[in-house]
Amino acid sequence: MQKLPLKIGLLGLGTVGSGVVKILQDNQESISIKVGRGVEVVKALVRNPDLPRAVNCDSFTLTTDARDIIDDPEIDIVVEVMGSIEPARSYIIESLKSGKNVVTANKDLLALHGRELLDAAKEAGKDLLFEASVAGGIPIVAALKHSLAGNQIKQLAGIINGTTNYILTAMADQGRDYADVLKEAQDLGYAEADPSSDVDGLDAARKLAILASIAFGSRVTIHDVFTEGISKISKVDLAYARELDCSVKLLALAQEDEERIEVRVHPAFIPNSHPLSSVKGVFNAVYVVGDAVGETMFYGRGAGSLPTGSAVVSDLMQVAHNLETYANGSLNCTCYRQLEIKPVSEFKSAYYVRLNVKDEPRVLASLAHMFAEAGISFASIIQKPKPGQEAEIVLVTHPCQEGQLQQAVEYLKVYSKVLDICNIIRVEGGQSWSGRD
Amino acid sequence: MQKLPLKIGLLGLGTVGSGVVKILQDNQESISIKVGRGVEVVKALVRNPDLPRAVNCDSFTLTTDARDIIDDPEIDIVVEVMGSIEPARSYIIESLKSGKNVVTANKDLLALHGRELLDAAKEAGKDLLFEASVAGGIPIVAALKHSLAGNQIKQLAGIINGTTNYILTAMADQGRDYADVLKEAQDLGYAEADPSSDVDGLDAARKLAILASIAFGSRVTIHDVFTEGISKISKVDLAYARELDCSVKLLALAQEDEERIEVRVHPAFIPNSHPLSSVKGVFNAVYVVGDAVGETMFYGRGAGSLPTGSAVVSDLMQVAHNLETYANGSLNCTCYRQLEIKPVSEFKSAYYVRLNVKDEPRVLASLAHMFAEAGISFASIIQKPKPGQEAEIVLVTHPCQEGQLQQAVEYLKVYSKVLDICNIIRVEGGQSWSGRD
Repeated sequence: MQKLPLKIGLLGLGTVGSGVVKILQDNQESISIKVGRGVEVVKALVRNPDLPRAVNCDSFTLTTDARDIIDDPEIDIVVEVMGSIEPARSYIIESLKSGKNVVTANKDLLALHGRELLDAAKEAGKDLLFEASVAGGIPIVAALKHSLAGNQIKQLAGIINGTTNYILTAMADQGRDYADVLKEAQDLGYAEADPSSDVDGLDAARKLAILASIAFGSRVTIHDVFTEGISKISKVDLAYARELDCSVKLLALAQEDEERIEVRVHPAFIPNSHPLSSVKGVFNAVYVVGDAVGETMFYGRGAGSLPTGSAVVSDLMQVAHNLETYANGSLNCTCYRQLEIKPVSEFKSAYYVRLNVKDEPRVLASLAHMFAEAGISFASIIQKPKPGQEAEIVLVTHPCQEGQLQQAVEYLKVYSKVLDICNIIRVEGGQSWSGRD
Repeated sequence: MQKLPLKIGLLGLGTVGSGVVKILQDNQESISIKVGRGVEVVKALVRNPDLPRAVNCDSFTLTTDARDIIDDPEIDIVVEVMGSIEPARSYIIESLKSGKNVVTANKDLLALHGRELLDAAKEAGKDLLFEASVAGGIPIVAALKHSLAGNQIKQLAGIINGTTNYILTAMADQGRDYADVLKEAQDLGYAEADPSSDVDGLDAARKLAILASIAFGSRVTIHDVFTEGISKISKVDLAYARELDCSVKLLALAQEDEERIEVRVHPAFIPNSHPLSSVKGVFNAVYVVGDAVGETMFYGRGAGSLPTGSAVVSDLMQVAHNLETYANGSLNCTCYRQLEIKPVSEFKSAYYVRLNVKDEPRVLASLAHMFAEAGISFASIIQKPKPGQEAEIVLVTHPCQEGQLQQAVEYLKVYSKVLDICNIIRVEGGQSWSGRD
């Protein structure tokens, strides 16, 4: 092995950056054999070089000036693991312009400025790889870009936010309330002090924008994704889910339908017979249906220092291979068309509708009539008595358009026997889902 | 798109070959956009050109002479989907020598002659890709070769034979006998008239040899794999599995332990909390634990015309990309060391042991004593009365070495109160398994 080692500059040395350093140190020997030369971090951009670090930094320089890395002619690959939009965006573009290949884990940036960044990489003739930006260690970007490339992807359904899946799993298994489990998740470090990006579905929406862009070969941004969070899910809903042999998940769904893309993130009931229902706790999974391959699922840890670092290192090794074969820049943006985004009113789902009603004769008949007026029929009905003159009714509809459901809800709102529309949650992944039959 | 289309020669036009043709026809447009040029089958080797075919063959020539393909200077890529050892082996080697890149789906050949074939590819400076040889449409070869390349793989556990998983799933769900379900599987075409390659575990062992070679970077052949089939599993064992909150699967396991590789295929109890337990029917899955990525699982259809064709087409597109960047032959054999194979006597497992014993006092105490003599303790015990003076006892041990278990079995054989050692099945994937904690 006579070749000079590959020199890496890290922009950021937080959770993911430390993971990258540790993997390159721990598996130095096998990685350098596979790559055909050493792979060494030579510089890392940090805010404060005097802070204690989770990894041994003796073998490289800490700097507070990004130019030390971007302008260093010795550095072959820049790894952007600082997160957020700016200055990460500018640093990546400048790195590409200064002739470096770039590996990034930055989902926020790609979901918003993916096209601009990939265009910059194309122009520079350099690689911009981003496996780590979605679902941590799960190689879903590679699967969609390469392994399933011969397929028309029909659907993609992911559990791609570990925090919400941890919360929903704990609520379901322990019969606990949302607020209570969220507090615990914050104490354990699984949820941020301000949890909104996770629990409101924004984090999942960003990742879905990236995945849908690759799966359908058509650029999707965060702005295209319909997004609804989990904060309104109660332990009562989870108890009904169990009764209906379902799990509740924050689902990130994308599907192509007549040359339009439907992209949405929301909580959903999914049948326990569906592969995604067994994804528990902080684990992530992406379920993909291709016209040739049929149903597939990719499962693993969606976050964390080493799992995400694993994806970064895999990209580093790909860049190294491309350097070897002079193939950098040969495969970046895979979007080859631009499809329209389907409007929300045309989404089609089954729905779980939980109502408090007056416990009087003929209420159920009236409800059935209102839904029928909107063109909606029921798949199942559960009615339970409540204290006083009330009853709780759960209706599960057959699939209908979002617009039809909204019409039924208008009827419910003006019907005096309905005391409360407690919750409405989509039901996905059943036989009606086009990927399953 | 000015470039001439890529020309493909198919060696074989059976189930997989037809799938490849259909995918290239159905997804012609998107594939040619992604590849940057058309991809066309121009010739296919068949035994009888007059037979009816599952796909439209108007656009290419059927030939009965392999030389028509191997010696055709116009053909860029040879796809070997004829199966078996010879003449497939010779045809692949000759194709490589005559300057063609090769994609194969042939697990038998790779599990036996992988090194020879990959050496031939290296010498020719051509690609030899084989994603389709293991687990059909599941991109596990790419995952191990590329996406998880920064990891030291600790363990790999697969359900990689659809026939046996179909049989075990039906036995478990319907409480039916092995012979009965096997007959049904044969009638449905899920099992061959001679089912031995599937039910005896040989098919899984071949695939495991290929996967283990890549996962551990060390050549493993079919001869290295300890193999035991499912024919001795009875519905009684499946009922106990359910009672113990486990599933029974034909598991293909590979792990590295102190620079030795352990490779084995056998039926196993796995806890229902393990991701592999939810893999039902003809589906396959490969569970991989890496030192950085942690637990991952790859799930999908392990066989069939289109799923396996999907893997072949993905490899074809990779070859096309390599042609574009003049990188053919740059990544073939990934074995970089040669580890020893661990002997069977040192395998470590927990065991399910089902016995018929005389229903007399102190029998259980004596059994416990015998196992203790062999250094084995119990995790659980189930005892059930049987007609007459008999009882059925199920012992689940804590993990011990195979050699210790054999010692305990010797004691059982000479103990007069033991009427029958009904079955002994390994228990894997529990907390004691190093990948889980």
